[in-house]
Amino acid sequence: MTVMDLNSDVGESFGSWSMGDDAAILRSVSSANVACGFHAGDPSVMAQTCRAAAAAGVTVGAHVAYRDLAGFGRRFLDCSPTELADDVLYQMGALEAMARGAGTTVRYVKPHGALYNTIVHHEAHAQAVVDAVKAFGGDLPLLLLPGSVAARRAERAELRTVTEAFADRGYTPEGRLVSRREPGAVLHDAAQVTERMIRLCEDGTLTAVDGSTVRIRAESICVHGDTPGSAAMATEVRAGLEAAGITVRSFA
Amino acid sequence: MTVMDLNSDVGESFGSWSMGDDAAILRSVSSANVACGFHAGDPSVMAQTCRAAAAAGVTVGAHVAYRDLAGFGRRFLDCSPTELADDVLYQMGALEAMARGAGTTVRYVKPHGALYNTIVHHEAHAQAVVDAVKAFGGDLPLLLLPGSVAARRAERAELRTVTEAFADRGYTPEGRLVSRREPGAVLHDAAQVTERMIRLCEDGTLTAVDGSTVRIRAESICVHGDTPGSAAMATEVRAGLEAAGITVRSFA
Amino acid sequence: MTVMDLNSDVGESFGSWSMGDDAAILRSVSSANVACGFHAGDPSVMAQTCRAAAAAGVTVGAHVAYRDLAGFGRRFLDCSPTELADDVLYQMGALEAMARGAGTTVRYVKPHGALYNTIVHHEAHAQAVVDAVKAFGGDLPLLLLPGSVAARRAERAELRTVTEAFADRGYTPEGRLVSRREPGAVLHDAAQVTERMIRLCEDGTLTAVDGSTVRIRAESICVHGDTPGSAAMATEVRAGLEAAGITVRSFA
Amino acid sequence: MTVMDLNSDVGESFGSWSMGDDAAILRSVSSANVACGFHAGDPSVMAQTCRAAAAAGVTVGAHVAYRDLAGFGRRFLDCSPTELADDVLYQMGALEAMARGAGTTVRYVKPHGALYNTIVHHEAHAQAVVDAVKAFGGDLPLLLLPGSVAARRAERAELRTVTEAFADRGYTPEGRLVSRREPGAVLHDAAQVTERMIRLCEDGTLTAVDGSTVRIRAESICVHGDTPGSAAMATEVRAGLEAAGITVRSFA
Repeated sequence: MTVMDLNSDVGESFGSWSMGDDAAILRSVSSANVACGFHAGDPSVMAQTCRAAAAAGVTVGAHVAYRDLAGFGRRFLDCSPTELADDVLYQMGALEAMARGAGTTVRYVKPHGALYNTIVHHEAHAQAVVDAVKAFGGDLPLLLLPGSVAARRAERAELRTVTEAFADRGYTPEGRLVSRREPGAVLHDAAQVTERMIRLCEDGTLTAVDGSTVRIRAESICVHGDTPGSAAMATEVRAGLEAAGITVRSFA
Repeated sequence: MTVMDLNSDVGESFGSWSMGDDAAILRSVSSANVACGFHAGDPSVMAQTCRAAAAAGVTVGAHVAYRDLAGFGRRFLDCSPTELADDVLYQMGALEAMARGAGTTVRYVKPHGALYNTIVHHEAHAQAVVDAVKAFGGDLPLLLLPGSVAARRAERAELRTVTEAFADRGYTPEGRLVSRREPGAVLHDAAQVTERMIRLCEDGTLTAVDGSTVRIRAESICVHGDTPGSAAMATEVRAGLEAAGITVRSFA
Repeated sequence: MTVMDLNSDVGESFGSWSMGDDAAILRSVSSANVACGFHAGDPSVMAQTCRAAAAAGVTVGAHVAYRDLAGFGRRFLDCSPTELADDVLYQMGALEAMARGAGTTVRYVKPHGALYNTIVHHEAHAQAVVDAVKAFGGDLPLLLLPGSVAARRAERAELRTVTEAFADRGYTPEGRLVSRREPGAVLHDAAQVTERMIRLCEDGTLTAVDGSTVRIRAESICVHGDTPGSAAMATEVRAGLEAAGITVRSFA
Repeated sequence: MTVMDLNSDVGESFGSWSMGDDAAILRSVSSANVACGFHAGDPSVMAQTCRAAAAAGVTVGAHVAYRDLAGFGRRFLDCSPTELADDVLYQMGALEAMARGAGTTVRYVKPHGALYNTIVHHEAHAQAVVDAVKAFGGDLPLLLLPGSVAARRAERAELRTVTEAFADRGYTPEGRLVSRREPGAVLHDAAQVTERMIRLCEDGTLTAVDGSTVRIRAESICVHGDTPGSAAMATEVRAGLEAAGITVRSFA
C-alpha cells in the first residue's frame, strides 16, 4: 500500500488580517505547517489553527522563520547563529503550548520562506536550526529540501529529515525546482498536477521541464492555500491520490 | 525551621539594551521571574537567563505580560479575554522551551506590570490568566497579590496561589501597599528593610506606615534589581534572612 | 450648490497581508484616511496608497492610532498623554514624507479605532491628539465625532474640526450611533443608505432607528471598503449623491 | 580658520531601556545622528532628543536603519530596494515631525549599522537610500564612508556627500578602517585620539596602523557615547580641537 503525506502552510493570518483558506486546506492535508508568530500568526490565530488541525486529525508542525513580520519571513536576515537558534526554539515552544492547549502537540519542524531557502546552503544557519530542534527535545523530524546543507547537518545530529516535493512546481532534469524567473516554474492545471503527484507516489518520478524523466525523493508533497485556486488544487490532489489507492497520512 | 522564598524580575534586557543586574539578583533570590518577550526579553536573553538561573539553582517562573514592548508592559491594554489567554499561553510555552534548552523548566507564573495590577480587580483578565495556566497543563502556581480577584479565580480553578510581600514597600494598617504618591511608599534603607523581612518571616507581621502592626500573608518576598542600589539591597536581605536562621527556598 | 465630503479608511494592508478594496474606494471618496504604520500600513503600503490617492485626486489624511499592530488599533491602550502625543506626531510626519514622495501632502487628521472612540470622552488623550496636531504645524483639521471631548479640545486650540456621519449606521433619536449590540445598528441596503445620505446632504436630517427625524451635523460622510459589499455601497453612494446634484469634494 | 564637524549617535534609548550618555554627547558634538524608531528610538525618545539637540545648538540628522529593533539595525536584511527606500523615507518624515515639534529640523541623513556598511558595496540598497533622500525633498546631505558605492550614487543624484573619520579607530595604510578582528582596530587612549584628530583637522593625515602616514578625507569626525569612557573621550576630543584653535561646527 502506497502512503504519502500532504503538507501545507496554515495559520498565516495575523491580527485583523487573514490569509489563506485554512478550512479547505485542513480538509486536504495530513500535515499542517503552523506559523509561530515570527513571520505570521499570532497567539490567537495559532490557538485556532491548532484546534482546527486537531479536529481535522491533521498533524501539527512548527513553521519557524526569521523574525520579520513586515517581510513575512521572506527576506534573509543576517542574524547570528545563536540568535537564530534561540528564535527557532522560542517559536517551537510557543506553538507547543498552543498545540497542547488544543489537545495536540507539535510533531515536526519546517523552516519557512527565506530561512527554508537559506539553509539549503548556509552552514551556520542550518546548524542553528538543527541545534534548536535538538534543544527542544524529542528529536522532531525536519521537513526540508533533499540534498540541502540543512539535511546533512540534521542527519549528522541524528535527526530524521523528511524531504518534500512541490505539487505545483516544475522540475529540472537534475531534480531541482525550475526558477520562478523561467517558464514552466509553476503549474496551474490541477488535473495535470494531480496526475504528476500520483505518478510520484507510485514510482518516484516526474516529467521534468525538458520532457525527460527525473527521479524525486519525497516523503511529503507540499500544496498551497494562499493563492486563488490553490486550495481547490489541494482538494483535487487529495481526492486524486485517494482515488488512485494512495493513503494520505502524515510522516510523523 | 522557617522557610521563605525570595523572588525578583530578571531577563528584562532586550536586544542591545540591558536592564538590571541579573547576576547579582540570581545570587540572592530563590525564584526568578523571567520576561517572555512581550514586555521585555528576547529569545537569546531568555536562554541566557534560564541558563544562569539553572546554574544558580534558582527556580524559573514565567513573567507574563500584555503585548507591549514599547511600554514595558506597564500600560493597560484592553484586549479580549481570549487574546489575553492566548498571549499568556504563548509566553509560557516560549519560556518553557528556553528553560528546557537550559536544563530547567518553568515552575510558576507571575503576571507583570499592568497585567499584575489589572487582575487585582478585572474579572475577565484575571480569568484569562487562569485559563492560560490551566491550558498549559501541570497546574503551575500563580504568584499574586493576596486578596485579588485573580487569586479568587485561581483558587476556584484549583490552582495554587502564592502571595507575596514587597521588601522595599510601606504597608497601610489594612495590609495594602502605600500608594507611590504618598510618603512612606518606598523604603530605601537596606538594614531596615532586612529587619522588617526577618520579622515578617518570623511572625508574619510588619510595622505599617502609621506605626501600627499589620499581619501580612506572604509565601514569597519580592526584591528588585533594576534600580540603583536595589541589587545590593537584595543581597543584604538574603544575607540577613540566612543569618537569622531562615532558609531561603522557592515555594515551587 | 450642495457639497459633501466622502471619507474612507485606506492603506490598511500590511506586508504580505492585504485589506480592503482601495482601488474601488479611491474612485468613490474625496478624502482618504491613510493608515500610518501603528495599527496598519507599512511604509511601502503608505507610499502606494498616497500615489493612488494623488492619481485619483483624493485628499490624504493621517489615520493615526494607538501603537497596536496586533490589535489593529482597536484596543484601548493606557499610554501617557506624552507618549500618545509623540506617537501621533510621529505617524503624521511619517505619512507626510510618503505623501510628499507621492506628490501630495497630508491635509487632515482622523484618529482611528479605539483612539477615535476614546477621545470622545477621555480628556487627556483628546488633548494629546490636539497637541500633536498643533506640534506638527499648519493646524490641520481634525475629523471627529460631533460633540466629543476631542472636538471641544480642538476648538479651544483653534483647530478646525470636521464632523462626520456614518453612511451605513443607524442613529438614535438623540443623534448618536445605535450600539452594535442592538438591532438597526448597521444598514446593509445600498439604495436605502444612498437615499439617507442624499437627504442628509440636502436638509441635514436622517430617520432615526425609532422612525423619528433626527438632525445630524456632518461635513463628511464615512463609507467603508473592508467588508464584503462595502466598496460597492460606497460606489453607489457616490453615484447617488452626484445624480442628486451634490458635489463630492473634500473639506480640506 | 580650521573648521570640523563632530557627529555622534544619540536617541538610541527605547521605551524603558536607556542607552548612551546623550546629555554629555550633546555638549561635545555639532551633529547628532538621531535614531528614528527602526533600530532604536521611539517617538518620545525622539522628541526628547530633538529638544535636547535644539537646546544645545546641535544639528539634527536622521539616523536611518533597516527595520530591525531586535537586532539594533546591526544585521543585514535582504529587503527589496523599494521596501528600503520607503522605510528610509518613513523614518526621515517621522523624525522631521519630532524635530519640528522641538523647534528644529532634520538637516542631514546618516545610515546606521548594517545599512551603513551594506551601502559601501550594495548597489541597489545604496540607490534606495539615495532615492529616499531625493523623495524627501530639500536634497539633504548624506554622511557616508568615503569611496563607497553610496557616495558615488549620491553624487550622481547631485546630493552632497559628507565623509567622516572615526576618532577611536585605527586606519590601514590604504585609508580603510582596521578590521575589528585585528589589533589596533580600536583606540582607547583619549589623549592619543585627540592628538590624532587635531592632526587630521590640520593637515588631513593620520598615522596608520603600520606607522605610515595616510591621507584621510573627512568633513566630520564620528565619536561615540554608548560605551564606558566614550562620552568622556568625546568631551576630550571636543576640548582638544577647540584648544588647538579648530572651530567645531556642523557641515549642514
